[in-house]
Amino acid sequence: MLIKDLSIMEDGRLLRDVNIAIDGSRIAGIGPGVADESGDGEVIDGSGKLAIPGLVNAHTHLAMTLFRGYADDMELLPWLSEKIWPLEAKLTAEDVRWGTKLGCLEMIRGGITCYNDMYYFMDETARATKEMGLRAFLSEVVFDMRPDQIERAEPFVKRWKGDDLIVPALGPHAVYTCSEETLLKSKEIAEKHDVMLHIHLSETRSEVESFEKNCGKSPVEYLDSIGFLSDRVVAAHCVWLSERDISIIAERGVTVAHCSISNHKLASGIAPLDRLARTGANICLGTDGASSNNSLNLFHEMKTTAIAQKCAHSRPDLFSAGEVWKMATENAYAAFGLDLGIRAGALADLALIDLQKPWFFPLTDGNILSHLVYSAQGGVDTTIVDGNVLMKGGVIPGEEAILERAQEQFLDLLAR
Amino acid sequence: MLIKDLSIMEDGRLLRDVNIAIDGSRIAGIGPGVADESGDGEVIDGSGKLAIPGLVNAHTHLAMTLFRGYADDMELLPWLSEKIWPLEAKLTAEDVRWGTKLGCLEMIRGGITCYNDMYYFMDETARATKEMGLRAFLSEVVFDMRPDQIERAEPFVKRWKGDDLIVPALGPHAVYTCSEETLLKSKEIAEKHDVMLHIHLSETRSEVESFEKNCGKSPVEYLDSIGFLSDRVVAAHCVWLSERDISIIAERGVTVAHCSISNHKLASGIAPLDRLARTGANICLGTDGASSNNSLNLFHEMKTTAIAQKCAHSRPDLFSAGEVWKMATENAYAAFGLDLGIRAGALADLALIDLQKPWFFPLTDGNILSHLVYSAQGGVDTTIVDGNVLMKGGVIPGEEAILERAQEQFLDLLAR
Repeated sequence: MLIKDLSIMEDGRLLRDVNIAIDGSRIAGIGPGVADESGDGEVIDGSGKLAIPGLVNAHTHLAMTLFRGYADDMELLPWLSEKIWPLEAKLTAEDVRWGTKLGCLEMIRGGITCYNDMYYFMDETARATKEMGLRAFLSEVVFDMRPDQIERAEPFVKRWKGDDLIVPALGPHAVYTCSEETLLKSKEIAEKHDVMLHIHLSETRSEVESFEKNCGKSPVEYLDSIGFLSDRVVAAHCVWLSERDISIIAERGVTVAHCSISNHKLASGIAPLDRLARTGANICLGTDGASSNNSLNLFHEMKTTAIAQKCAHSRPDLFSAGEVWKMATENAYAAFGLDLGIRAGALADLALIDLQKPWFFPLTDGNILSHLVYSAQGGVDTTIVDGNVLMKGGVIPGEEAILERAQEQFLDLLAR
Repeated sequence: MLIKDLSIMEDGRLLRDVNIAIDGSRIAGIGPGVADESGDGEVIDGSGKLAIPGLVNAHTHLAMTLFRGYADDMELLPWLSEKIWPLEAKLTAEDVRWGTKLGCLEMIRGGITCYNDMYYFMDETARATKEMGLRAFLSEVVFDMRPDQIERAEPFVKRWKGDDLIVPALGPHAVYTCSEETLLKSKEIAEKHDVMLHIHLSETRSEVESFEKNCGKSPVEYLDSIGFLSDRVVAAHCVWLSERDISIIAERGVTVAHCSISNHKLASGIAPLDRLARTGANICLGTDGASSNNSLNLFHEMKTTAIAQKCAHSRPDLFSAGEVWKMATENAYAAFGLDLGIRAGALADLALIDLQKPWFFPLTDGNILSHLVYSAQGGVDTTIVDGNVLMKGGVIPGEEAILERAQEQFLDLLAR
């Protein structure tokens, strides 16, 4: 496949009129005169477009896209106990299938090529994600209230290990929902199969305070004391951290999956990203589920992260566009071990963005990252994952049928 | 003109399969079987689309769209003194013309049909806005440092009074840039011609503190003491307000134009919208200029306003989707005296939104406002102002030429 006459970014500056050749799942070459040697004959006109490497959604619950807009503007506990948990009690694999596909459509439209998820019925999510063509790190959520879940975790890992798009992981839900035994068992399975660990950590103030009261340690100190923390851990949220927690996270090489919009919408608080960054922690961005966001858009997430952090610290110079862009790309590639980027040899996970939109004007040599982070409003034209074209010219084959089917499935769940 | 088979909202619920007939500048009829009696023969297929009444951008500086992405991530004073003011010193009417047109394109794509602006070379903004077909409330910015500006204010009002799309107003910049004489002169002209007053008010903490130190009163108390405040005043920002300030604003019927994204990006602070709302103040939403936002999108502004206020007050139940939607619509219609809405007799200022997008699914009877505020990502398909179709099927005639011309104009300004 050859993408012709497009622009790419180099050190935050535009490089125009280059070609990208894709052979199989990888970028074979990039440059002004590069030709296609794959022999498949596919040509995409890239003129007026910018290639960006795929964005990574580092924390979500994709099947919950089915619950989008079902309950908003509520306190956290009644939201969970009156709305979300009763729906989840009735949840079937078929619900998960169509919630996942709906979420995939939205992420493809937003230039997201890989996501990190924990939820129920993960085989269904894995199959649906493969059908949609996205890359994903998936974990069966592990929860003591649902003791069958830990039994599902290792078989799930074994079934999917070695797949080209699906990377299995372990997903112990949180310190307040998993016993020490469960946490250590999850860690043991993760180490045995050399896969990642995905956990919620210190999301709300009350959760952290009640844990400290019972345990005498913060959630981070506790996880460190049992040897849970390492660079295979992706910790979602990390809003309520002490100085000591921050040092531990940085020292252990834990990746923070920051979810700015969800934390704001649920009024959980504003994460101390400046101190995490200064201490050397790796920070990525996640949308969380569409039940609390309510979208799955990393462009929104980047802008909200930058401006919320600036405001929280009364420092407009903190969290530049370039820094936040890295959180959605390079920091995530490092965390998940993804060989991604707009360069020869990298996996062909990328999106083409239509630059002929008012929000990208004026376009000078030095402001493309500012436009991507602060101004972009849609305009993802083409999304490619593993060398496969998932969307081209804004069209995703079969989208309408999936939208209708997801709608039916949600009405069926409500009526159940 | 007849828009056929579309959906509208009634009390936050979807009403499907209705027609909207437009005759001249007004909606002639709405209903399932409504026919076109205008005789112009124009038919728009509304199937799969939702009609919303036009959104109102209650505070911006549209010509500054030309400065988008020119300088970001800087402290306020160096940003102004090293970047913005030097550009403005070289500003010409031609710059204003193309900055305005670029801004209009973006607002048309975002379903904004009316905006409230203060800046230089307002005749040029007025002409460019009329050419683009939008409705606007425009003021020559009044500034003591530029004493010629107050001389321009009344002639501008006289020239444009009675226009079908352009409503002139008075724009004294702020209490720290205008003397008492200038403020009172502005008020006098506004009363004489029965037009509105547009002012920046209590945007940053340092501005308010230094004013109080010099004057012994808060900016709001001061403006009230000289009789400036009334329901013809639209006050942008209002971030740093005392309890007494809030009471005064509510009592005098002043409209607050809240600019959540700009306030966050410049790290100005978070406005006390909850207390303003509880005290009965009228709150609208503005994007501010694209030099500090950096977009002109009220969907982003609605979501940011809701989630930032929820988080600032640790109350996820505050600022519901419906409340924030009103700020961008009904509250603004009341403030500016606009006869708008999706109803027979109202001005035909409206947008059609494509509902066949993943972010609008699942779509049930009760969640359309949630989707519009929390989930919508573009998808404005058609924008109509004063009965004229400015965009149809995502196409704005002449857009590409305007983008190129704005680009040239900015490069010319930089090189000047």
